[in-house]
Amino acid sequence: MADKMRATIFLGPGRLVLGEKPVPEVGPLDALIRITMTTICGTDIHILKGEYPVAPGLTIGHEPVGVIEKLGSAVSGYEEGQRVITGAITPSGWSNASLDGCHAQCGAGTPHGWKALGGWRFGNTIDGAQADYLLVPDAMANLTPIPDGLTDEQVLMCPDILSTGLGGAEAAKIRIGDTVAVFAQGPIGLCATAGARMMGAAEIIVIEHLPERCAIARRMGADHVVDFAIEDPVSAIMRITRGRGVDVAIEALGKQQTFEWALRALRPGGTLSSLGVYSEDIRLPLDAFAAGLGDHRIVTTLCPGGKERMRRLMAVVASGRVDTSALVTHHFSLDDIETAYDIFGHQRDNVLKIAIRP
Amino acid sequence: MADKMRATIFLGPGRLVLGEKPVPEVGPLDALIRITMTTICGTDIHILKGEYPVAPGLTIGHEPVGVIEKLGSAVSGYEEGQRVITGAITPSGWSNASLDGCHAQCGAGTPHGWKALGGWRFGNTIDGAQADYLLVPDAMANLTPIPDGLTDEQVLMCPDILSTGLGGAEAAKIRIGDTVAVFAQGPIGLCATAGARMMGAAEIIVIEHLPERCAIARRMGADHVVDFAIEDPVSAIMRITRGRGVDVAIEALGKQQTFEWALRALRPGGTLSSLGVYSEDIRLPLDAFAAGLGDHRIVTTLCPGGKERMRRLMAVVASGRVDTSALVTHHFSLDDIETAYDIFGHQRDNVLKIAIRP
Amino acid sequence: MADKMRATIFLGPGRLVLGEKPVPEVGPLDALIRITMTTICGTDIHILKGEYPVAPGLTIGHEPVGVIEKLGSAVSGYEEGQRVITGAITPSGWSNASLDGCHAQCGAGTPHGWKALGGWRFGNTIDGAQADYLLVPDAMANLTPIPDGLTDEQVLMCPDILSTGLGGAEAAKIRIGDTVAVFAQGPIGLCATAGARMMGAAEIIVIEHLPERCAIARRMGADHVVDFAIEDPVSAIMRITRGRGVDVAIEALGKQQTFEWALRALRPGGTLSSLGVYSEDIRLPLDAFAAGLGDHRIVTTLCPGGKERMRRLMAVVASGRVDTSALVTHHFSLDDIETAYDIFGHQRDNVLKIAIRP
Amino acid sequence: MADKMRATIFLGPGRLVLGEKPVPEVGPLDALIRITMTTICGTDIHILKGEYPVAPGLTIGHEPVGVIEKLGSAVSGYEEGQRVITGAITPSGWSNASLDGCHAQCGAGTPHGWKALGGWRFGNTIDGAQADYLLVPDAMANLTPIPDGLTDEQVLMCPDILSTGLGGAEAAKIRIGDTVAVFAQGPIGLCATAGARMMGAAEIIVIEHLPERCAIARRMGADHVVDFAIEDPVSAIMRITRGRGVDVAIEALGKQQTFEWALRALRPGGTLSSLGVYSEDIRLPLDAFAAGLGDHRIVTTLCPGGKERMRRLMAVVASGRVDTSALVTHHFSLDDIETAYDIFGHQRDNVLKIAIRP
Repeated sequence: MADKMRATIFLGPGRLVLGEKPVPEVGPLDALIRITMTTICGTDIHILKGEYPVAPGLTIGHEPVGVIEKLGSAVSGYEEGQRVITGAITPSGWSNASLDGCHAQCGAGTPHGWKALGGWRFGNTIDGAQADYLLVPDAMANLTPIPDGLTDEQVLMCPDILSTGLGGAEAAKIRIGDTVAVFAQGPIGLCATAGARMMGAAEIIVIEHLPERCAIARRMGADHVVDFAIEDPVSAIMRITRGRGVDVAIEALGKQQTFEWALRALRPGGTLSSLGVYSEDIRLPLDAFAAGLGDHRIVTTLCPGGKERMRRLMAVVASGRVDTSALVTHHFSLDDIETAYDIFGHQRDNVLKIAIRP
Repeated sequence: MADKMRATIFLGPGRLVLGEKPVPEVGPLDALIRITMTTICGTDIHILKGEYPVAPGLTIGHEPVGVIEKLGSAVSGYEEGQRVITGAITPSGWSNASLDGCHAQCGAGTPHGWKALGGWRFGNTIDGAQADYLLVPDAMANLTPIPDGLTDEQVLMCPDILSTGLGGAEAAKIRIGDTVAVFAQGPIGLCATAGARMMGAAEIIVIEHLPERCAIARRMGADHVVDFAIEDPVSAIMRITRGRGVDVAIEALGKQQTFEWALRALRPGGTLSSLGVYSEDIRLPLDAFAAGLGDHRIVTTLCPGGKERMRRLMAVVASGRVDTSALVTHHFSLDDIETAYDIFGHQRDNVLKIAIRP
Repeated sequence: MADKMRATIFLGPGRLVLGEKPVPEVGPLDALIRITMTTICGTDIHILKGEYPVAPGLTIGHEPVGVIEKLGSAVSGYEEGQRVITGAITPSGWSNASLDGCHAQCGAGTPHGWKALGGWRFGNTIDGAQADYLLVPDAMANLTPIPDGLTDEQVLMCPDILSTGLGGAEAAKIRIGDTVAVFAQGPIGLCATAGARMMGAAEIIVIEHLPERCAIARRMGADHVVDFAIEDPVSAIMRITRGRGVDVAIEALGKQQTFEWALRALRPGGTLSSLGVYSEDIRLPLDAFAAGLGDHRIVTTLCPGGKERMRRLMAVVASGRVDTSALVTHHFSLDDIETAYDIFGHQRDNVLKIAIRP
Repeated sequence: MADKMRATIFLGPGRLVLGEKPVPEVGPLDALIRITMTTICGTDIHILKGEYPVAPGLTIGHEPVGVIEKLGSAVSGYEEGQRVITGAITPSGWSNASLDGCHAQCGAGTPHGWKALGGWRFGNTIDGAQADYLLVPDAMANLTPIPDGLTDEQVLMCPDILSTGLGGAEAAKIRIGDTVAVFAQGPIGLCATAGARMMGAAEIIVIEHLPERCAIARRMGADHVVDFAIEDPVSAIMRITRGRGVDVAIEALGKQQTFEWALRALRPGGTLSSLGVYSEDIRLPLDAFAAGLGDHRIVTTLCPGGKERMRRLMAVVASGRVDTSALVTHHFSLDDIETAYDIFGHQRDNVLKIAIRP
């Protein structure tokens, strides 16, 4: 193993380079993973645009698939050479938030044990996965062996996209027989659609414009596809549900417009599950919010993490319950990551997700 | 029984009179109650001000305590002369919403069985309780005998104030050991404080300015009282919780300011339970909403209703778990209801709730 | 309409005849349905054997598909001639139990509003569905229009088998990624398998011996089939789960043996969901029950009912999420119901469910 | 610090001595606590009697209050000299069970991450707390600073008795207005009574014979006390609830008799929450279990653990919500622990809990 490695480094708004960094030192609770596949997330684009602040100099990326290169002295239960993933969220396990089941808001190291977004460390507060090697903190809570027979590409969506998308369905507590609308069918929206289907929704309406995404949405479980460029989504939903509205609306874009549509699409007493990363204040219109008297629930989900979550998601993939391979539309090597960012950031060439191989 | 009765009639924004109406006819599923005590709600003031629309000519009021005068031909299980209450919310029991447990959004008579605020009928869509007699629809789902030994005044808060206030704590799923903030200590806020205490909150912080309300808040279970005129509530909460924030924030006023304070007071992953009746759009500031990534829950509650709810609340009162008698600060006869509205609507004389006796 | 009708009458243990009864009178809250299809349930066999007591002279059967013949004077929202089903469980909507969401234990008419099995009336406490006509009490809470395009046979399992089977999965609170075992693949077990699949179980293990049932189980979602005649089910489950055990075990037979297997198959902290109708005391072996220290949950489900439940189930069928048509292995006319009972009661001819047409 | 210490050593059934052991070595993730107060649990008596198997030579006891003596090299966030408790259950935080929120069944070190009772380590699988020093594994998940102003005695019940007792109420999901019965008012039953009260039960019925315990039960929140030596408890409960039964029955003794009473006391659809440590198979009588058709839930709870749980419980104590000091009826020094076991094991002298000071 060399002592230098390639890393995708954020230099400041709009500036990103594939540079060189030392291979990290491995502390007693850490593990070093050699990355075999990773990908770029919409959140990385927010970072690149300066819409979400991270420190210049940080390696970005939070979706790792790899092989254990080295284990910390206090880490047991794993072997070097083992194929593993970790979630985008790497909870400590031992923070108060984590012990309370709120892994994404893990406050390891804070006085009281809770920290907003604290479970998201890779490419946010510590070096991330778009590199040759990745240092995994609290390794025993996070390293998850890949079941035999699953390829890197098959599990590439588990760390973030699948966990977040399904998480949006779970947070909404979808029940058998529910009618569900999902706003936007990007990678996370598509996984939310899959989640609604997996939880027993009887009727799933997705709102999307791009034909390629609409086609994949149907494969993920959508029953109705509404093109917002052709029909007002709320009217369409009321038409389809004969005036009732949906039990659950999942917002998977991150805009006021989709949030508001989602709220207006709900039946009284319905649940809005938000998966968007917003860049502006969100407004709840008085009428849509029923003056606060509609028994509405609005829930937000960062991304569930930790090795038990990853184990469960890979079991779902292994049993064929969901197939995320259609989401990987492009492949690049790490050397070409700047090109990959250009394609992904500008949504060129019908891109959904890009697999990056170091 | 005369065939005419007194009734508090809404004539249009700002206009209300004690007029005369015929005593209602009793249909097969109905019951007629002779009102022995009722009260005025903040929502009635919204109606009077024209902020919440109801049809001119309607009798208002939705908090009835009374005696069964006459039962519909298909109603069994009750006796004339029995002392009863019904909730402010009178679910049908048989609508889809009601069968699904969502009584406040009961859609009896609609094609699909759900209707926004549909469970709230008295003084909203049918004649209400500030009158000599009240016609109760779907009587078997709503008439609730008053346990022996409880006075009218003791149960007067059950139909709305106590059900709503406790409902805000319940919807937030407060757990033993939680820290809870309650914004505003009007009648509903005070009952939310009682609800937080009843569900095991270890530390309750209330935000209120009026000394009389602060004093009652302490009796209802508040551990800390923050006067927003003296200290910024969010700073105070962060000081008291040593930077952690609260697990649950209950908004009981209905303003952007209190809603926003509530959101900012939450720990990551916390729950905002809203009980306010809003008159404006609500804004979720980007930072307070953690860009949608804070695993927040926002829940709203109209008011749980139906006879099982009322039975439970009166059991709570009967066992002394909560004493709402301190909330009744004034007594008036029905003949003086216009004066009562003047005092209550202008919050004169430290008024909390006014008991009205026909 | 004639004033006499055919009815399947229980005369006492072991004795059942197709006899004649008057067509029922319709009270104000009732509806009369002309049965177009019904079926025989395992519970009917319990009744016939004298294992579950009902009054001699009662018409049995609780799974109705039909057409509205006549509506009670106080019933609105339906039309005569409409195709409908009602659940096997017909909650009042207005009992305390029903208002609390516990429809199957509806205590309509009792002093306190709860009654064990009280929601199950057809063929238990009032005349049932294996007849030309059926009187439906509390019609507005129970009549559910059949969506256009669905045949009688497609919805025949909704009143009981599908509602109960899915109910077992729901009561267990199956989560995405769970491993689930289902003990016995009779009609209800098969629907429990479908329910586990619909709720996102990643791996489903069924325990069954009959090859025909094993084949259908795979179509309903089973990943592994264990033949208890060949391999000890608990050992097989531990082999398949590599020693972990299952998150949820569903017992769908009603015997000590299967109950005990289910308990032993659980991982620590797992949930046993029982759907069986037992005829003997159930024993929790000390070791399997972990001396009471295993954080186990044991939940039982009678059968969820009411029109909102039926609406949801038919939505599930309409969208193709589950296909129960494979469960109907035989067809008979009402005139031949005694033969049908003979085949079903003795499990001849690979019978699963028998559709009966009057 | 000496290198030898006193320790209460289990030698085999019926045999226990205060012996000498080396002070433990501190590994990187561990902490060493100097015990300042501990106590004896009913489970220790089970161990002593040979009813629950542990390895001869083990130091027993699992309820530690102490001072941090030494921290492992990888442990941060604490200081030597700090006053702390840890739960009786010491989850790893990083096992699959722990990450899934099931701390008491933590499977740290097992292949799949779940282990029956695995979270209970002190005095079960590793040396326990009835000694001068205690080695705490996974210290960062378990060490919990004692809030200023709380004495050792005030927090002594938190590690086990209070956590378990409240846990029984929580697992039952008690709601505001419930009627609850608690069977047996030993230390855990008394805390279950407190838990029922803290969660909003409107009416609490306890079943106990000893007058001293009955008196404390009333202080913990009981409304009715039934002496099983005078009246059949099930009859008494049906009398008090006017035939309805209780929503929740908590079994806190660990015998067939109390378990069966609890089951029979339930209303249809009620929940039995079991806290007992059983020494025999448990039988569910067919009628009491409603042939499996009663929509019953039976839940068991070992004891919630981890530092967030302990923090919450001490917050409850600090705010005066519950006062467990009445449970400590005796004080002994560690040198007299054999006498303490004799008194506690034979329930002499109205003993409830014995505080032991090294």
